[in-house]
Amino acid sequence: MMSKPLVGVQDYEREARWRLPKTALDYYQSGALDEVTLKENKEAMDRWYIRPRFMRDVSKRSLATTLLGHKVAVPFGVAPTAMQRMAHPDGEVATARAAGRIGAPFTLSTISTFSLEEVAMRAPNTLRLFQLYIYKDRELTASLVRRAEAAGFSALVLTVDAPYFGIRRADVRNQFTLPPHLRMANFQSDEAASNHLHTSDGGSGINEYVASLFDPTLTWEDVAWLKSITKLPLVLKGILTREDAILGVEAGAAAIWVSNHGARQVDGVAPTVNSLRFPHPLFPDGGPSRGGGGSE
Amino acid sequence: MMSKPLVGVQDYEREARWRLPKTALDYYQSGALDEVTLKENKEAMDRWYIRPRFMRDVSKRSLATTLLGHKVAVPFGVAPTAMQRMAHPDGEVATARAAGRIGAPFTLSTISTFSLEEVAMRAPNTLRLFQLYIYKDRELTASLVRRAEAAGFSALVLTVDAPYFGIRRADVRNQFTLPPHLRMANFQSDEAASNHLHTSDGGSGINEYVASLFDPTLTWEDVAWLKSITKLPLVLKGILTREDAILGVEAGAAAIWVSNHGARQVDGVAPTVNSLRFPHPLFPDGGPSRGGGGSE
Amino acid sequence: MMSKPLVGVQDYEREARWRLPKTALDYYQSGALDEVTLKENKEAMDRWYIRPRFMRDVSKRSLATTLLGHKVAVPFGVAPTAMQRMAHPDGEVATARAAGRIGAPFTLSTISTFSLEEVAMRAPNTLRLFQLYIYKDRELTASLVRRAEAAGFSALVLTVDAPYFGIRRADVRNQFTLPPHLRMANFQSDEAASNHLHTSDGGSGINEYVASLFDPTLTWEDVAWLKSITKLPLVLKGILTREDAILGVEAGAAAIWVSNHGARQVDGVAPTVNSLRFPHPLFPDGGPSRGGGGSE
Amino acid sequence: MMSKPLVGVQDYEREARWRLPKTALDYYQSGALDEVTLKENKEAMDRWYIRPRFMRDVSKRSLATTLLGHKVAVPFGVAPTAMQRMAHPDGEVATARAAGRIGAPFTLSTISTFSLEEVAMRAPNTLRLFQLYIYKDRELTASLVRRAEAAGFSALVLTVDAPYFGIRRADVRNQFTLPPHLRMANFQSDEAASNHLHTSDGGSGINEYVASLFDPTLTWEDVAWLKSITKLPLVLKGILTREDAILGVEAGAAAIWVSNHGARQVDGVAPTVNSLRFPHPLFPDGGPSRGGGGSE
Repeated sequence: MMSKPLVGVQDYEREARWRLPKTALDYYQSGALDEVTLKENKEAMDRWYIRPRFMRDVSKRSLATTLLGHKVAVPFGVAPTAMQRMAHPDGEVATARAAGRIGAPFTLSTISTFSLEEVAMRAPNTLRLFQLYIYKDRELTASLVRRAEAAGFSALVLTVDAPYFGIRRADVRNQFTLPPHLRMANFQSDEAASNHLHTSDGGSGINEYVASLFDPTLTWEDVAWLKSITKLPLVLKGILTREDAILGVEAGAAAIWVSNHGARQVDGVAPTVNSLRFPHPLFPDGGPSRGGGGSE
Repeated sequence: MMSKPLVGVQDYEREARWRLPKTALDYYQSGALDEVTLKENKEAMDRWYIRPRFMRDVSKRSLATTLLGHKVAVPFGVAPTAMQRMAHPDGEVATARAAGRIGAPFTLSTISTFSLEEVAMRAPNTLRLFQLYIYKDRELTASLVRRAEAAGFSALVLTVDAPYFGIRRADVRNQFTLPPHLRMANFQSDEAASNHLHTSDGGSGINEYVASLFDPTLTWEDVAWLKSITKLPLVLKGILTREDAILGVEAGAAAIWVSNHGARQVDGVAPTVNSLRFPHPLFPDGGPSRGGGGSE
Repeated sequence: MMSKPLVGVQDYEREARWRLPKTALDYYQSGALDEVTLKENKEAMDRWYIRPRFMRDVSKRSLATTLLGHKVAVPFGVAPTAMQRMAHPDGEVATARAAGRIGAPFTLSTISTFSLEEVAMRAPNTLRLFQLYIYKDRELTASLVRRAEAAGFSALVLTVDAPYFGIRRADVRNQFTLPPHLRMANFQSDEAASNHLHTSDGGSGINEYVASLFDPTLTWEDVAWLKSITKLPLVLKGILTREDAILGVEAGAAAIWVSNHGARQVDGVAPTVNSLRFPHPLFPDGGPSRGGGGSE
Repeated sequence: MMSKPLVGVQDYEREARWRLPKTALDYYQSGALDEVTLKENKEAMDRWYIRPRFMRDVSKRSLATTLLGHKVAVPFGVAPTAMQRMAHPDGEVATARAAGRIGAPFTLSTISTFSLEEVAMRAPNTLRLFQLYIYKDRELTASLVRRAEAAGFSALVLTVDAPYFGIRRADVRNQFTLPPHLRMANFQSDEAASNHLHTSDGGSGINEYVASLFDPTLTWEDVAWLKSITKLPLVLKGILTREDAILGVEAGAAAIWVSNHGARQVDGVAPTVNSLRFPHPLFPDGGPSRGGGGSE
């Protein structure tokens, strides 16, 4: 191959910047509002030090661990990211297969451009989790759960931080919608998703979609309901406080996925890597963190 | 509309930079002296984290609160900013009406380019506060108070941080004055304001105006006097220390408006958002803050 | 005047950058070695907050104080800076007169391009201090002291931080010397100063001058000697530690001038404004400051 | 000489950037992975302050100290850096001689482009240390030790932080190998080093070389073995934790060389200058440092 090798994620980002249409690129790389947390997400990692120990026999090394009882070769995996065929025709299938090849878990987004059945069929050897929302239409929700179970997904990942979608200014400027040749593959009917996503009158199409289907009345009782209709372990994704982590476990979660949604939902939150750390290292007295929420 | 949508304040700032005359733009965007605090005002906000709680019913949300006993739909509003018709012919009237449309309070600057009566007449449904100074000419001051009361303003906002005006270098370089087609609409007589503002001989016209009319002998007793001549609640704007907040309340203030005047008055003060915080998060022992003022 | 007004020190710096010959500009603006402290000197000031108090009668304001028993109108003055006629033909005389006009003290550098007698004669109403070194030639030193006394200088400022001169890379690159039309005006004889300064063979001429005349054997006893031969108060300039401040006072100093020489001598020292502060605000336990010096 | 003098390391770096082939330059200047530690290595030095003491007799100054019982004129020296003839035909010999000229110790890398005997012969008056690895082939290792002893090296420096080599992305992109006209001069046979280094199929040749020869099973017992076969003092280079420093001394080390390998091995470690400092100045409670290693 004559082209330069791509080494490290920066090379892939550079490549993406001239290959992808601006609308897709903006969708993938933007964060909420002023992108303060997006920047902080990256920088916070650099402030953690590794303290390496040497002169140990490292001829046999393993990063393997277990995730929800399943063996994984590496302690990281693929988070749910929507609409991957905007970037490449092989979309979520390619990502799922790549994850499987290194023994990493893969999480399929509900808003995928291959259906969950296609991904399951074409990446059979990958440990697959299915990300979903609790829709206003509980039957639609239950149907997705049944399909995920039938297709051999190993867990459900409920996104808890999106009762409304984050405002990404680039998407609003671009009046972002899914390109016409693609569809939200997990939804067959016209009422669902795809049509709404294409009808935009000056704003982000994805936000309108969410507003039309998502249920902002959700509480921890709905988490318990979801848990009650499935035998799959339930992962809660998007928790950013100790308090919610505890409530999540009490509601039946098998795992808490600490995440700020790639800084795409709420701007001004702590970087994910520091989220559950309390007190904040610079503010041992609790410092300038504003308390969120109210009393239970 | 063919033009690009304006999304977020950055877009409006960019638009303003090529639409506005340099003199007006500089006046609006400059801070005092080295603009250290101007920069810090922005950055300090980014260092505060939100700790979001999830899985609560957020279908009915409200930012409503009360301000001085009046219901407001949002917990923020429009601060007094002078001479808005330099930016647009509709000036303060447009801003007041926009505030009213979202249920936000609006504060009219004394140094406005529409009179307080015009603003009241044309933005009748907006909760309006009137910002003023205590002039050397106490009768002029009292007359403004009576007019604000008559025009249905809901509070007086006394600016306490401007016995002299801050030095904004761009204004000095531009020998800033109000453009000839505009006037300071709250002052009818020639002696007041407008003439002074137009007579500049190498310096900032606004500073000369202030020097000619403002009263640098003011003390907390003058606050009490102002309180005594009005039934309107009195807000003190520009307080930056706990000590002054306490003195202000003792002098009869209904509210303390913590503000560093958009970093336009004294450079080198703490960012507004951290002003009343003590001790400073980085300097738990009081650190390098120099004590201001003297003994009472 | 058609030219733009110069407002604030930044405007003067910009002007200087295109008016001055590169060699002179580099000499004036460079700091020692990597210029870490030069940068920190500026930034440290911005990290100190003013806590302004309001609603006080500020119609009569005064910055006046006393310096060594003399009234000064402002609590700052002109530090000794060498060879000012490289920048303007009026050199130190102009600076001394400008200081006098605002009631600020003026310190004349030994390495001046007007003699101390000329400055005294042409800036008679300025409070003048005379900066000097203790030379290997003690009689030369004593003669400068006598001349400063005779010319009506009010104090001697002994520079303590220059047993050797700081390395400023730009000066080494430029092989900096005093321009041929100028001379070090406080020295009449050929042996002293001027000739040495012009003989440079690949390095900074000023450093060679210092090496030839300055005395690196100085101790606190030499301070006491200097004190013994003059009735003028003695100021020690360049102290950066509490320990040395105490030793200086014990040696007879009337005042300690805390300074890191504009970051021109030792790179890597604390910014002047924080020098005597202990512990360092970021390192309450003494932190990463290396102890300097040894035991007494 | 007409060319500009080179003053300070920045000038030499600038010169190198246009003189050296890109592949060599990249090899010399790159750090591991994201180069977070490379940047931090430089910046951490700037955060340490010198507290200078003045008015001491500094006419006789000395930086001399002892290193492993040998007098050295300066308390610093040359660390082992590989393949110096990529930069200049005189390579390691020139560096060793330059070190000797100022009385600094010189450490020869095993991966040098002059043999250790050549360096010893041509830099006889330099205090020389020899850096080595413990190879899979212990006899090869022992042979290097015997040669270093015979050639009059004063100590062995065992690199402990390279069971595998750090990933430097520039080297991978460049498919870095030693230029064909150079060889790894300490290895005569074809099996060793040089051939391996030239056989690269899409990756860094140096990494492949290391993988083929280095022994990742090493433990502290191997350090003790190395110590047992030589009378030379043994220095352990690359220690970054207090825990390993203690283990190293227990294994027989004469000295611990605290180093993060110029940030070329593990990215995300503390800057060398702060490595053994505990707790971290910003995190007095141990803060966000992840514990490394496991239990002994």
